[in-house]
Amino acid sequence: MTRSILITGGARSGKSRLAERRALAPCGRAIYIATAEIYEDDVEMAARIAEHRARRGDGWRDLHAPRDLGAALRASDGDLPRLVDCLTLWLTNLLLAEADWRAEVQALVQEIARQRAPVIFVSNEVGAGIVPENRLARSFRDAAGWMNQAVAEACDEVWLAVAGYPVKVKPNEHTF
Amino acid sequence: MTRSILITGGARSGKSRLAERRALAPCGRAIYIATAEIYEDDVEMAARIAEHRARRGDGWRDLHAPRDLGAALRASDGDLPRLVDCLTLWLTNLLLAEADWRAEVQALVQEIARQRAPVIFVSNEVGAGIVPENRLARSFRDAAGWMNQAVAEACDEVWLAVAGYPVKVKPNEHTF
Amino acid sequence: MTRSILITGGARSGKSRLAERRALAPCGRAIYIATAEIYEDDVEMAARIAEHRARRGDGWRDLHAPRDLGAALRASDGDLPRLVDCLTLWLTNLLLAEADWRAEVQALVQEIARQRAPVIFVSNEVGAGIVPENRLARSFRDAAGWMNQAVAEACDEVWLAVAGYPVKVKPNEHTF
Repeated sequence: MTRSILITGGARSGKSRLAERRALAPCGRAIYIATAEIYEDDVEMAARIAEHRARRGDGWRDLHAPRDLGAALRASDGDLPRLVDCLTLWLTNLLLAEADWRAEVQALVQEIARQRAPVIFVSNEVGAGIVPENRLARSFRDAAGWMNQAVAEACDEVWLAVAGYPVKVKPNEHTF
Repeated sequence: MTRSILITGGARSGKSRLAERRALAPCGRAIYIATAEIYEDDVEMAARIAEHRARRGDGWRDLHAPRDLGAALRASDGDLPRLVDCLTLWLTNLLLAEADWRAEVQALVQEIARQRAPVIFVSNEVGAGIVPENRLARSFRDAAGWMNQAVAEACDEVWLAVAGYPVKVKPNEHTF
Repeated sequence: MTRSILITGGARSGKSRLAERRALAPCGRAIYIATAEIYEDDVEMAARIAEHRARRGDGWRDLHAPRDLGAALRASDGDLPRLVDCLTLWLTNLLLAEADWRAEVQALVQEIARQRAPVIFVSNEVGAGIVPENRLARSFRDAAGWMNQAVAEACDEVWLAVAGYPVKVKPNEHTF
């Protein structure tokens, strides 16, 4: 049985919609673990969250885990699939809090191995543009790529979202 | 019979060349629908257009549809395949004109369903870099991703161009 | 026998690690051709090189070819596979030196055809973000995409690295 899935892709590539479909597939109900830190003045993020919630409709129980994702996974590990949306925002929160993000990612990887109910992670591709001039942006994109590799290795399936459709990355029948 | 194809990819990933090959495949002749708004002082764009035209060679009839793509599709729906190059520039033109781009994309989607002759759309992946600091750039990348998803859903085939080669996105034999 | 392989992908997508695995596969030993121009004050690059070297471990002979990659390929064409890491830095060096990069890429393509021992090239996807405002960045991304297409055409295999896993680009069983 597939227990852990990573869906990665660029902005607005349909990652969340694919993840929602997959999370609801077994029984029409799932747990949504949001990682967005909600700041009072962030109108863009508030609009995006409202849009996601409206689209998801019924059948969801919502959790909020901007920092302690491991605890949220442990607490929610029951009968329902979980959707974590998204890892890139979780990493951003860790970096802003000056947490030891490498240690946190390693701990998440260990947590993934312990899960019994399925968990679907959404993450962002941020490394396929021109090298950013800003040093912080370069560090972030390195961290995000490193995290994606670590989580991909821990997951049973990895998919790349392109224009709303999933391209299979892992497992892959091609001999490399 | 395949009637509508979307070829997406990053800058200089070989999208246009693949699209040209596909458009000419049935009968060696096709209609080229250019969406670039040509400004007098845009030397880069003029050079790119000249390069595309030189590469394409004979066998093409050229149309120009920087805004009313639906009308161009209706007017050209005869015996020959059409190549629309590209949707991202068309969207840019709509945004610059402060048109209702969501409504225009929806109208395009309906037009695609009505076409009888094949049509191949070229579009750009713009969402796989770091989040732009510029708010307008963020809006544009959201709009471009949203448009790509809508057009992909309306098309029979979707391909991702990587280093000049097509990776199949839709239809896809992998069970998601 | 596969003699030439291109592995492309975004920053921190696992390209180098995949290329190392592939280079060592035949006999556990390989030649590493580094293209990074090492500047005294570039701490970031020095750290990345040190990390790559530590990860690679034994079994490698190191060459340095920031500009004359063709000569390095000819000189190293013996019993061992070669790994060129990476083409994007090599192109950067050519552009900074105001060399005729198109001619250099064409010469490389011809050199690839003459190689007897396997060679694995690592390259970067830089064109899937928003269009850069900076004209130099736009030129670079055009050149990088153009180079990737030329090298991909010359290679027997092309792979796209996503979160550490290889997606097959060429050869591809899908009829386009």
